[in-house]
Amino acid sequence: MIKEGDTVQLKDKKNSFFIKLKKGEIFGTHKGNILHDEIIGKNYGDTVKTHKGYEFLILKPTLYEIIMYGIKRQTQIIYPKDSAYITLKLGITDGMKVLESGIGSGALTIVMANAVKPSGKIYGYEKEEKYIETVKENLKLAGVENYVSIFHHDLSERLPESYFDAAFIDVREPWRYMENIKSSLKRGSPIGFLLPTTNQVSRLLETLISHNFIQLEVKELLIRNYKPVPDRLRPEDRMVAHTGYLIFARNG
Amino acid sequence: MIKEGDTVQLKDKKNSFFIKLKKGEIFGTHKGNILHDEIIGKNYGDTVKTHKGYEFLILKPTLYEIIMYGIKRQTQIIYPKDSAYITLKLGITDGMKVLESGIGSGALTIVMANAVKPSGKIYGYEKEEKYIETVKENLKLAGVENYVSIFHHDLSERLPESYFDAAFIDVREPWRYMENIKSSLKRGSPIGFLLPTTNQVSRLLETLISHNFIQLEVKELLIRNYKPVPDRLRPEDRMVAHTGYLIFARNG
Amino acid sequence: MIKEGDTVQLKDKKNSFFIKLKKGEIFGTHKGNILHDEIIGKNYGDTVKTHKGYEFLILKPTLYEIIMYGIKRQTQIIYPKDSAYITLKLGITDGMKVLESGIGSGALTIVMANAVKPSGKIYGYEKEEKYIETVKENLKLAGVENYVSIFHHDLSERLPESYFDAAFIDVREPWRYMENIKSSLKRGSPIGFLLPTTNQVSRLLETLISHNFIQLEVKELLIRNYKPVPDRLRPEDRMVAHTGYLIFARNG
Amino acid sequence: MIKEGDTVQLKDKKNSFFIKLKKGEIFGTHKGNILHDEIIGKNYGDTVKTHKGYEFLILKPTLYEIIMYGIKRQTQIIYPKDSAYITLKLGITDGMKVLESGIGSGALTIVMANAVKPSGKIYGYEKEEKYIETVKENLKLAGVENYVSIFHHDLSERLPESYFDAAFIDVREPWRYMENIKSSLKRGSPIGFLLPTTNQVSRLLETLISHNFIQLEVKELLIRNYKPVPDRLRPEDRMVAHTGYLIFARNG
Repeated sequence: MIKEGDTVQLKDKKNSFFIKLKKGEIFGTHKGNILHDEIIGKNYGDTVKTHKGYEFLILKPTLYEIIMYGIKRQTQIIYPKDSAYITLKLGITDGMKVLESGIGSGALTIVMANAVKPSGKIYGYEKEEKYIETVKENLKLAGVENYVSIFHHDLSERLPESYFDAAFIDVREPWRYMENIKSSLKRGSPIGFLLPTTNQVSRLLETLISHNFIQLEVKELLIRNYKPVPDRLRPEDRMVAHTGYLIFARNG
Repeated sequence: MIKEGDTVQLKDKKNSFFIKLKKGEIFGTHKGNILHDEIIGKNYGDTVKTHKGYEFLILKPTLYEIIMYGIKRQTQIIYPKDSAYITLKLGITDGMKVLESGIGSGALTIVMANAVKPSGKIYGYEKEEKYIETVKENLKLAGVENYVSIFHHDLSERLPESYFDAAFIDVREPWRYMENIKSSLKRGSPIGFLLPTTNQVSRLLETLISHNFIQLEVKELLIRNYKPVPDRLRPEDRMVAHTGYLIFARNG
Repeated sequence: MIKEGDTVQLKDKKNSFFIKLKKGEIFGTHKGNILHDEIIGKNYGDTVKTHKGYEFLILKPTLYEIIMYGIKRQTQIIYPKDSAYITLKLGITDGMKVLESGIGSGALTIVMANAVKPSGKIYGYEKEEKYIETVKENLKLAGVENYVSIFHHDLSERLPESYFDAAFIDVREPWRYMENIKSSLKRGSPIGFLLPTTNQVSRLLETLISHNFIQLEVKELLIRNYKPVPDRLRPEDRMVAHTGYLIFARNG
Repeated sequence: MIKEGDTVQLKDKKNSFFIKLKKGEIFGTHKGNILHDEIIGKNYGDTVKTHKGYEFLILKPTLYEIIMYGIKRQTQIIYPKDSAYITLKLGITDGMKVLESGIGSGALTIVMANAVKPSGKIYGYEKEEKYIETVKENLKLAGVENYVSIFHHDLSERLPESYFDAAFIDVREPWRYMENIKSSLKRGSPIGFLLPTTNQVSRLLETLISHNFIQLEVKELLIRNYKPVPDRLRPEDRMVAHTGYLIFARNG
């Protein structure tokens, strides 16, 4: 049964809306208004009508959909193809303490936070204060706000010693903070990075080697969508060709 | 602190071993024996010596490593690039009841089981009895055995009505069981499939459309590894070109 | 030395124009007019000025540039990544008689015609009369009009017996004409096809097998562009994901 | 009609042999001997028998097949997917004088030589003397030996001034010779490079910019093969992930 605080997806042929339910509130669409109270108490798969009589299907949004269509984007986000892989590659699971910096719009934070539930936590360091309020809203929309602590910090500020079980770093010049990052990681812990250019990857690899990180890997993930037409199956005409290089290592 | 029942990775320059710890047991390597009891009580990042004096680093294996290097493979597995994406795309999270069939070696099962912790469950239907024992061992190695129920069932056997929150189907002819699968899913629930050939994809899409599934998508994921050499950065010479097409939909 | 009839590229910082030179003619740009006669007699690499004093560099256009930027497009063209490969794969070389159908805008025709020079010929069958005039202009722009004969024919019309050394077929339903195509090819001759959907590829492969073609191959070519910035080298954000599947065989 | 000096492909179910025909010679296979004289005078598509009675189909080999299966490889070759594209991109056509260095096994040389026929020439500079004899044999096998002049030269030796219409450079450190290469090219001429690592690409781009080359482009081409089975159409399991980055420019 759907309850206050849940995020639901309202869907008709053309539109998808993502709403965090709160008693007494009204959601306005161009096809009329919907009372949150009329959704609370229903089940996923039920329908709800606007005051003009238009019907919407009530779906439980997947994390994927919340990230792709629900959250407010204030930066280039880390896409599901990458965030899902990063989370598995870093072994993020229940109970882990994970360093993330920067957190941007929180797209990766949501995926990792969902993986450390219920007893772990993501420690998000973000130097841009203006981003933090929106990230908090995004985390609430995804229902993972209790598993993330956000700090308005730069990576140059002192991190706790041998504290983190894993880390993901998405900043322009990660090599500048490597001493600090390394000392904050437990020995053997996995770490990942995202960087857009090959020059940055080379520079990072140098720094990882000089800081005795082990098991270095560089990867990129590509996703190709097909038109889902049974008798005319074919790839779509265009695709995203680059989001970033993923670099992984362990604190050796 | 490492305790009995944990799965640890023992690593030297050349080798990685994955061991589920049990008091009193001995692990034999070509460089000598290691007592499980000498690992229990240590911390990740510590080292342990064989009776011949060779040293191994004790690491906490990531789920990725357990899947890639730890589990016993009795079938073609679903690789992390795909299993991570599937799990996020289907919105697998705490508390969900998820149908999976077949389960093969359990590589995807492990990733999804980790995502439904602590209150959800994977219901794995596998028609090949010979696979089931090994899958159970693999799940134990990954520490997720409590979140999976395995049934020696074919998908043609009656499934519970409107029961599952999500499903992933990896069988050769999924269209044969579509009525049964559909009725077992709650309305609006996401479902995914993996199929190796384009002919199967076309046939499945037809069946999904005729059964009123909605939000059809067909995707493939490619991963490209680079040689992690700072001053000679380049892709590896060869890559995996195909594991399978991923098809996603919702029970409309 | 540049002479009448040559196609030249006029280039400044922002623009590229492709002109087939004819004595007495004037080429108008938004930066002023250029007399063809002022280009004739110069060398590639020289410059020419408009009557308003703007300078353009005179370059010899490559076939690549003529195809990509010079010809008039009336259909989806076959891009250089594909046309170059097709021409080499079919072994198109001096003296060969090559069947092509349809010819669309002539983008592949130009590449193959350039390869059969000086003693071979492309026989282009095109069922859409409206395309033919523009194709002829495009061939002239590329300077290969003497190596192509265009017929306003459908592939269902009788082709000459055992006549062609190679063929490339780019029509929607090539299987409908296979008998005719096969009998027009010398024994052992290579043939290629371009088809956008997997269903068409399957259907074509069936027909090729039933008609005793040998050495069947299916391929696709992908091209990925990088931003040419030395210290921020990275792939472009988006790429063409699909132009078509290429199918090759020999008349066995 | 097949004549002395032609290169033919002999094919049965399992084998392909490439032979340059010479009167009086014998070609030995594990299925018996074939007299060259028995092939001379036949037509492509005919068959020939060994002295043991085994039959081979006589095919005219495509340049593609000669490069992939016929020539002797003494280095990593430039594959058809790249060589075909390079040749079209550089606009190589009848009458051009083209600089190539190094020439390795001649795989690209063959494609470009075929394109400059009958009045152009490839000028191949190769510093490794040991390669040159085999390249000459390879060119003969492909029938293009009259359109190539090979020099046992390093690119550091003085090249003729403003002489070449196009160039392709495949050496480890092309930036070392840029002054010399540039001055040997006519103004506006296209040039291409192949380099395996991103670091080399960055370094080359810097040098091209500092030497006032224009229209810089960096590309990579990927080819994906499918299993040609009509009712089980799917990509092959593995593919070549990297041959090299292609860099193109014009002498501005």
